[in-house]
This record gives sequence, C-alpha cells and structure tokens, in this order.
Amino acid sequence: MIWADRRLCDLLGIEHPIIQAPMSGSATPTLAAAVSNAGALGSLGCAEMSVEEFRAAFAEARALANGPINVNFFAHISPRADGGGLARARDFLKPIYAEAGLLEIPPWPQTIRAFDATILGPLLEAKPQIVSFHFGLPSPQAIRALKAQGAVILSTATTTAEARDLEARGADAVIAQGWEAGGHQGRYLSDQPAQIGTLVLVPQVVDAVQVPVIAAGGIADGRGIAAALALGASGVQMGTAFLWTDEAKVAPARREAMRRAGAGDTAMTKGFTGRPARAIVNRFVEAMAPHEDDLPPFPLLDGLTLPLDIAGATAGAPDYMGLLAGQSVARNRQGGAAELVETLAAETAAAIGGVAA
Amino acid sequence: MIWADRRLCDLLGIEHPIIQAPMSGSATPTLAAAVSNAGALGSLGCAEMSVEEFRAAFAEARALANGPINVNFFAHISPRADGGGLARARDFLKPIYAEAGLLEIPPWPQTIRAFDATILGPLLEAKPQIVSFHFGLPSPQAIRALKAQGAVILSTATTTAEARDLEARGADAVIAQGWEAGGHQGRYLSDQPAQIGTLVLVPQVVDAVQVPVIAAGGIADGRGIAAALALGASGVQMGTAFLWTDEAKVAPARREAMRRAGAGDTAMTKGFTGRPARAIVNRFVEAMAPHEDDLPPFPLLDGLTLPLDIAGATAGAPDYMGLLAGQSVARNRQGGAAELVETLAAETAAAIGGVAA
Repeated sequence: MIWADRRLCDLLGIEHPIIQAPMSGSATPTLAAAVSNAGALGSLGCAEMSVEEFRAAFAEARALANGPINVNFFAHISPRADGGGLARARDFLKPIYAEAGLLEIPPWPQTIRAFDATILGPLLEAKPQIVSFHFGLPSPQAIRALKAQGAVILSTATTTAEARDLEARGADAVIAQGWEAGGHQGRYLSDQPAQIGTLVLVPQVVDAVQVPVIAAGGIADGRGIAAALALGASGVQMGTAFLWTDEAKVAPARREAMRRAGAGDTAMTKGFTGRPARAIVNRFVEAMAPHEDDLPPFPLLDGLTLPLDIAGATAGAPDYMGLLAGQSVARNRQGGAAELVETLAAETAAAIGGVAA
Repeated sequence: MIWADRRLCDLLGIEHPIIQAPMSGSATPTLAAAVSNAGALGSLGCAEMSVEEFRAAFAEARALANGPINVNFFAHISPRADGGGLARARDFLKPIYAEAGLLEIPPWPQTIRAFDATILGPLLEAKPQIVSFHFGLPSPQAIRALKAQGAVILSTATTTAEARDLEARGADAVIAQGWEAGGHQGRYLSDQPAQIGTLVLVPQVVDAVQVPVIAAGGIADGRGIAAALALGASGVQMGTAFLWTDEAKVAPARREAMRRAGAGDTAMTKGFTGRPARAIVNRFVEAMAPHEDDLPPFPLLDGLTLPLDIAGATAGAPDYMGLLAGQSVARNRQGGAAELVETLAAETAAAIGGVAA
C-alpha cells in the first residue's frame, strides 16, 4: 500500500517488505511469530540447532504465527582438518581465558552446523515456506528438493559476484548485505571481509541480478527502509533493530553493552568463529586482533570461544562475550516486536512522503 | 521542484541539492563552473594551491560560472615536529621507490597547506559565497570574518560528535561523510578512521544537529541521491562520479585503473599522507600497510609519496600512484559535467517517483 515495488511481498506472502534477520541464538520462536503476525517475515536462525531443536522451534513458531516463518541455515562446507589451527588457537586463547578469570578452556561441542543430509530430510518434512541460507547455498539436489515442494530460497551476497552466483544457483531473492551489518558476513567467495557499504552494494546488486533484492546492513528505522527502496531494493532485512525487542533472547550483560555502544563502537572481527562478523568491540575482540590471519577453518574456533561468551553472560561481564551487533546499534528502541514492525511501516511511509515535493 | 527539502538549495543558492566534491588536484575551474552552470554547486579544492594559484583558479571559475563556487581548504594544524617520522618513512620508502624503478627519493615540497593567516586575507578579498573545510574548522576569528561578509561555511563530519562540534563552531551545514567515500576522510577528533557507513551516519547526524546535512560517500547516481534524501539529508556531495567527467583532471593511468576497479577494490589507507583516505588498492597501498602505525604527522608524508604519483602518471604506470576514489568507482559514466548533473536530477526524480505506490 505504501511502496510501489510489491515483488518481495508477493514472493514471501507478507504485507510489509521487512525481514527480521535470523540471528542464530537470539531469534526465538516468539520473536519470529510476533513479526510474522505483524505482517513482516519472522525468521529462525537454525545453524546452531540439533535436528530435535529445529523441529521443536519451528513447530512452536508455526503454532504461534499466522503468516510464513523463514528458517535459516549455514551453507558452508565443514572442514575436514584444522591444519593445526585448533592447537595454536588453544595456545593463544590460554592467556585470554586467564584474563577473563577462567582457569582452563573447557571441552565444548562445536555447535555451528553445516547444512547437510542430516537436516535436509527433517527440513523437507517440516515443509517450510521460506528457507534462507548464509555462506552460499547448499547442493543443487537440496535446492531442487526444497523448490519442488514450493519453498522460496533466499541467500546472502556481499558482492555483485556473489549475487550473480546465488541467482544462477536458484535463489529466488538475494539479500545484499553491506559492511554495516551485524553478525556474520555472508561472504563465501573469499575469506576476506567485503568492505562495501550498503548504499553502494544495493544498487550494484539490483543492476546485476533479475530477482528481487533485499537490503541488509545499517537499516535502523523507516528512513533506512525508504532509502533501501530508493536504491532499488524490494525490501530489507533488519537484525539489530529486532535484537532490541522484548522477544529477542539477549543476555542482560549484552543488552547493557548495546545500550552503551555508538555507531563507531563495532568492528568486523574473525575472532569468534574464523569468519568475519561485526560485533561491539570489547576486550576479546581486541585480544583476538593479532591472530586474525592464523585461525582454524570456520567454524572450529567457535567451540573454543563460546565458553567465554557463556561465562560472561552468566557473570554479567561483557568483556569476553560475543556482542554481535550492527552499526545501527545506537538506534535502540525497546518494546514488542509487533509494535516495532508497525512503527517501521509508519516511519517508512512518512519518509517516502517527506521526500517528494 | 522534485524534492521537498529546499533548505540546502536555499542556503547555497542552487537549483539541485548536489555538491561536486572539491577533490584537490582533480577539480578544475572548468569542472566547478560547468557544475555551477548546470544548477548544482561546483567546488575547487584549494588545499594544495599557493595563494597565487588560488587567486587564479577562483578567478577563472568565477568568470566561467553563473552560479556560486565553493572553495575548500584543509583546517588541520601544521605539525611543528615530525618525531623522527620523516626519517623512518624515508627508510621504508627506499625499497618501495626501488620497486617503482626510481633510484632515489627526490627532494619535494610539501604541497598540502593548512588554512592559516596567509590564505585568510586573500580569501576574504576574493569574497567567496561558500567556503568548505576538511579536518574541522579554522579559528573562530577566521569563521567570524568569513561569515561577517556573508560566506556560507560548510565542513565535514564522520561521526555525530564531529557533527555537533562543527555546528557549535558555526558551520551552516554539515557534510556527513561515510566509510564509502573516496579521498581523505574529514575525521579530525581522532586519527583512526571512522568506519561508519553513509546509511548509518546520515540519519544519526540528522538527529544530532539542527543545520542541513549533506550526505557524502558511495552516492553514484539518482538512486543514491533519493536514498540520501530519504535518510533525512538535505542534499549530497559526490566526488567519484565527477572524477569520471571530461572536465576533471585525471591522469590517463589513473582513469584506466578506475575503469578496471570494482566496489571491493578500494581500501582506506594512511599511506599517502598519514591520514585515512580511500583509494583503489595498488602495490603502493599494499606496501604501506605495515607502516600505518608509524607515519609522520599529517601531511608531512605527502612530500615523500607525491613524487611516486607524479612519476607513475608520467610513465602511465598506476602501481605507485595515488588512485583516490570511492567505493562507487565502478559506476563509471563519462561525459560532460553539466550532462551528469542533468542526468542525476532526472534519475533522482525517477527514483523518488518509483518508490511510492
């Protein structure tokens, strides 16, 4: 009703062209359902879930939601060997653990999972309407099987080359994720972070592909949504804005760190998992900076750094936690997720209406 | 006529809310006049000009232009000592000069000048309508003298703190310069680059100050201008887009490097002058990366690196040149500057019209 481009809304079966980012670990079934019921697309980040956890979370979200729910997976290839990287990481993590007041690095399971045959079957059984991927796309067979039962496929590009690759491999829409975005960059055709700002990336991706483009990175309010639409995007994906809502699972220490952060207080780091992710700069991010070029292959490092995050959350001490957030973190609006969606839609209409003479 | 917000157009006495960035060394009087005559604001970068060169360039631009011309200066404080940095830089530049095929580092004058009493007198005599600054603002006395004769004062902010500071010190409008921008960051309250994307910075600056905000960084076409207006900016400043025009002074080797560059081929470097600037990555940028934290104070390094730029331009070899450009460099449109302004205005109207239902 407000925006001329209905392609994304029609593709996803939603009213507002807004996707709540999947934010593995923070996006709860309650959040996804609240967003869905408000007319936007709610998402569940499933990359750290077991099959059983996925089934339960998706069932819960679907039971609560009237609209579609997006489920997100990581499409990287699991590494077969670590090249000694884990042992080296244990060595340089020891003093960091000591700084954090922990005596030793505890044994910890690797929780980030690659999308593979183990999850494909249960996913097909669950018949999701929308499946989004980070770090590329899974096998052609998996894409075909999902599309055969009507699933819409989304994935993330951080360059025009990645956008073209995703379109060629069957993505129904491409998320153009700029430098400002919080959490992991979806970058997969290189292990170096793409530094391209959302304002530059979006129109270039729009020109490079035929499918609808979803702008992500640095969009915090309706002005940002209107800007994304002006750049040619058919919609937006927003993470950090929803991290502030009541329904998101965010440890109090992380929320307090977010409250104190300005736009310049986040940085891109490989220090949590081995792949570039944007987080609020804390002592951990600083301590890992010298080791950026000698990390075990993604996602192995996560098993060594997650205990620090959990210990920090328990102790209420954010210095060694994973404070993933985007540059728009300073635009903090607390409240319910449905209220946020309504506010964003109204702001977008106002921003669009305010530009033209 | 197209956009609702007329504040910047009224302040500057222009028709289109577009400022051609001053681009010291590349923005010619012909370029500034062509932009001015097309209804936007043409600018002259005067930071590397002697008083005589400034007088001549401004007189030439004004003779050719029907509208106002903006003159730009650098407001940094000249360093009194180099802390031994120049000698250390000579040492690590020797092998880089050798790589470039030059036998020795020639004696070279420092061409970047701080705005001071030497230029204030001639500037007041020239009675410019608009004066913009980079790296803060000059003394309160200088600002008062310029404003007393009716000059409009602009300066650049890369954070909300800088925007508030500039407004408090008398800036009539603030240029919010994001991470994507080519050339020197205007950052002056820190010597570390601000990494805040234009999409994030602009609405934050709009909320932080009362004066009109000019968006800069990554804006390449009318979609970007419409996006900036949606974010709350009253206008835009564009550099790289005008670097492509016939009237810009760009060595053929630099133009060829720009033609080959994509959005991901630029990086922020201190390697040219000691302050962060965005340029196309070439061998020189890579060779300087290890020395970023041990450079002489701005702008002393420029006298040691400029000979490499000039030699490269002469030889048609871009590897050691200063290829300053923004992330939007891949959006290359050649032609006349007046034609570009008309195209941008038409595209902006189309982008605004295309968003609303």
